[in-house]
Amino acid sequence: ADAAAGKVKAKQCAVCHGIDGVARIPIAPHIAGETSVYLETQLKAFRSGKREHEIMSVIAKDLSDEDIADLAAWYASIKFEVTLPE
Amino acid sequence: ADAAAGKVKAKQCAVCHGIDGVARIPIAPHIAGETSVYLETQLKAFRSGKREHEIMSVIAKDLSDEDIADLAAWYASIKFEVTLPE
Repeated sequence: ADAAAGKVKAKQCAVCHGIDGVARIPIAPHIAGETSVYLETQLKAFRSGKREHEIMSVIAKDLSDEDIADLAAWYASIKFEVTLPE
Repeated sequence: ADAAAGKVKAKQCAVCHGIDGVARIPIAPHIAGETSVYLETQLKAFRSGKREHEIMSVIAKDLSDEDIADLAAWYASIKFEVTLPE
Protein backbone atom coordinates (compact mmCIF):
# COMPACT_ATOMS: atom_id res chain seq x y z
CA ALA A 1 0.00 0.00 0.00
CA ASP A 2 1.18 3.50 -0.83
CA ALA A 3 0.41 6.13 1.81
CA ALA A 4 1.59 8.98 -0.40
CA ALA A 5 -0.81 7.89 -3.15
CA GLY A 6 -3.45 7.56 -0.46
CA LYS A 7 -2.89 11.17 0.59
CA VAL A 8 -3.69 12.25 -2.98
CA LYS A 9 -6.74 9.99 -3.16
CA ALA A 10 -7.88 11.37 0.21
CA LYS A 11 -8.93 14.63 -1.47
CA GLN A 12 -12.42 13.15 -1.82
CA CYS A 13 -12.43 12.19 1.88
CA ALA A 14 -11.10 15.52 3.13
CA VAL A 15 -14.43 17.30 2.93
CA CYS A 16 -15.76 15.33 5.90
CA HIS A 17 -12.71 13.59 7.40
CA GLY A 18 -9.94 16.13 6.66
CA ILE A 19 -6.67 15.22 4.96
CA ASP A 20 -5.35 14.95 8.53
CA GLY A 21 -8.14 12.60 9.59
CA VAL A 22 -9.68 15.10 11.99
CA ALA A 23 -13.40 15.19 11.17
CA ARG A 24 -14.76 18.48 9.82
CA ILE A 25 -18.42 17.56 10.49
CA PRO A 26 -19.84 16.16 13.73
CA ILE A 27 -21.43 13.07 12.18
CA ALA A 28 -18.15 11.92 10.63
CA PRO A 29 -15.58 10.06 12.72
CA HIS A 30 -11.98 11.16 13.18
CA ILE A 31 -9.94 8.58 11.28
CA ALA A 32 -6.45 9.89 12.01
CA GLY A 33 -4.24 7.05 13.19
CA GLU A 34 -6.86 4.31 12.91
CA THR A 35 -5.19 1.02 12.01
CA SER A 36 -5.20 0.10 8.34
CA VAL A 37 -6.90 -3.18 9.33
CA TYR A 38 -9.85 -1.25 10.76
CA LEU A 39 -10.01 1.29 7.93
CA GLU A 40 -9.84 -1.35 5.19
CA THR A 41 -12.49 -3.46 6.93
CA GLN A 42 -14.88 -0.49 7.16
CA LEU A 43 -14.30 0.70 3.57
CA LYS A 44 -14.87 -2.83 2.25
CA ALA A 45 -17.99 -3.15 4.42
CA PHE A 46 -19.35 0.08 2.93
CA ARG A 47 -18.44 -1.16 -0.56
CA SER A 48 -20.12 -4.56 -0.07
CA GLY A 49 -23.11 -3.12 1.78
CA LYS A 50 -22.33 -4.97 5.03
CA ARG A 51 -22.25 -1.49 6.53
CA GLU A 52 -24.46 1.27 5.16
CA HIS A 53 -24.25 5.04 5.16
CA GLU A 54 -25.90 7.42 2.70
CA ILE A 55 -22.58 9.04 1.76
CA MET A 56 -19.99 6.32 2.43
CA SER A 57 -21.94 3.66 0.54
CA VAL A 58 -21.83 5.81 -2.58
CA ILE A 59 -18.18 6.80 -2.24
CA ALA A 60 -16.97 3.30 -1.44
CA LYS A 61 -18.71 1.77 -4.46
CA ASP A 62 -16.06 3.13 -6.86
CA LEU A 63 -13.01 2.32 -4.73
CA SER A 64 -10.66 -0.41 -5.91
CA ASP A 65 -8.80 -2.65 -3.45
CA GLU A 66 -5.69 -0.60 -4.24
CA ASP A 67 -7.51 2.67 -3.50
CA ILE A 68 -8.69 1.22 -0.19
CA ALA A 69 -5.21 0.00 0.74
CA ASP A 70 -3.63 3.37 -0.13
CA LEU A 71 -6.27 5.44 1.70
CA ALA A 72 -6.00 3.20 4.76
CA ALA A 73 -2.22 3.45 4.67
CA TRP A 74 -2.35 7.26 4.55
CA TYR A 75 -4.72 7.70 7.46
CA ALA A 76 -2.97 4.97 9.48
CA SER A 77 0.33 6.82 9.02
CA ILE A 78 -0.96 9.83 10.96
CA LYS A 79 0.25 9.89 14.55
CA PHE A 80 -1.90 11.13 17.42
CA GLU A 81 -1.59 11.68 21.15
CA VAL A 82 -4.41 11.82 23.68
CA THR A 83 -4.87 13.86 26.82
CA LEU A 84 -7.40 12.71 29.43
CA PRO A 85 -9.46 15.32 31.32
CA GLU A 86 -8.29 15.82 34.94
CA ALA B 1 -24.71 13.25 30.05
CA ASP B 2 -22.13 12.49 32.74
CA ALA B 3 -18.59 11.90 31.44
CA ALA B 4 -17.32 10.84 34.89
CA ALA B 5 -20.05 8.18 35.08
CA GLY B 6 -19.12 7.23 31.51
CA LYS B 7 -15.51 6.70 32.56
CA VAL B 8 -16.69 4.15 35.14
CA LYS B 9 -19.04 2.47 32.67
CA ALA B 10 -16.15 2.35 30.15
CA LYS B 11 -14.50 -0.48 32.11
CA GLN B 12 -16.33 -2.91 29.82
CA CYS B 13 -15.07 -1.01 26.74
CA ALA B 14 -11.48 -0.73 27.95
CA VAL B 15 -10.52 -4.26 26.96
CA CYS B 16 -10.65 -3.36 23.26
CA HIS B 17 -10.89 0.46 23.17
CA GLY B 18 -8.89 1.43 26.28
CA ILE B 19 -10.18 3.80 28.95
CA ASP B 20 -8.27 6.47 27.00
CA GLY B 21 -9.96 5.54 23.70
CA VAL B 22 -6.74 4.23 22.14
CA ALA B 23 -7.55 0.81 20.71
CA ARG B 24 -5.75 -2.17 22.28
CA ILE B 25 -6.56 -4.53 19.40
CA PRO B 26 -6.10 -3.83 15.68
CA ILE B 27 -9.68 -4.57 14.65
CA ALA B 28 -11.10 -2.04 17.14
CA PRO B 29 -11.17 1.67 16.29
CA HIS B 30 -9.61 4.39 18.39
CA ILE B 31 -12.54 6.30 19.85
CA ALA B 32 -10.65 8.96 21.79
CA GLY B 33 -12.09 12.39 21.01
CA GLU B 34 -14.78 11.19 18.63
CA THR B 35 -17.82 13.47 18.85
CA SER B 36 -20.61 12.33 21.16
CA VAL B 37 -22.95 12.63 18.14
CA TYR B 38 -20.90 10.03 16.25
CA LEU B 39 -20.40 7.74 19.26
CA GLU B 40 -24.09 7.81 20.25
CA THR B 41 -25.16 7.15 16.66
CA GLN B 42 -22.89 4.13 16.38
CA LEU B 43 -23.82 2.65 19.80
CA LYS B 44 -27.53 3.05 18.99
CA ALA B 45 -26.95 1.48 15.56
CA PHE B 46 -25.28 -1.52 17.18
CA ARG B 47 -28.13 -1.71 19.73
CA SER B 48 -30.84 -1.57 17.05
CA GLY B 49 -29.00 -3.84 14.61
CA LYS B 50 -28.61 -1.12 11.95
CA ARG B 51 -24.90 -1.82 12.34
CA GLU B 52 -23.66 -5.28 13.21
CA HIS B 53 -20.53 -6.62 14.86
CA GLU B 54 -20.13 -9.90 16.72
CA ILE B 55 -18.94 -8.19 19.90
CA MET B 56 -20.51 -4.72 19.73
CA SER B 57 -23.99 -6.04 18.93
CA VAL B 58 -23.92 -8.08 22.16
CA ILE B 59 -22.48 -5.31 24.34
CA ALA B 60 -24.79 -2.62 23.00
CA LYS B 61 -27.90 -4.68 23.59
CA ASP B 62 -27.80 -4.02 27.37
CA LEU B 63 -26.92 -0.31 27.18
CA SER B 64 -29.57 2.21 28.22
CA ASP B 65 -29.83 5.62 26.56
CA GLU B 66 -28.20 7.04 29.70
CA ASP B 67 -25.30 4.57 29.48
CA ILE B 68 -24.81 5.52 25.84
CA ALA B 69 -24.89 9.26 26.61
CA ASP B 70 -22.41 8.88 29.49
CA LEU B 71 -20.00 6.63 27.54
CA ALA B 72 -20.12 8.99 24.55
CA ALA B 73 -19.53 11.97 26.84
CA TRP B 74 -16.47 10.31 28.39
CA TYR B 75 -14.76 9.37 25.14
CA ALA B 76 -15.70 12.71 23.55
CA SER B 77 -14.04 14.52 26.47
CA ILE B 78 -10.64 13.08 25.58
CA LYS B 79 -8.47 15.54 23.66
CA PHE B 80 -6.09 14.45 20.90
CA GLU B 81 -3.52 16.01 18.59
CA VAL B 82 -2.33 14.68 15.26
CA THR B 83 1.05 14.78 13.57
CA LEU B 84 1.25 14.23 9.81
CA PRO B 85 4.21 12.31 8.35
CA GLU B 86 6.73 14.57 6.58
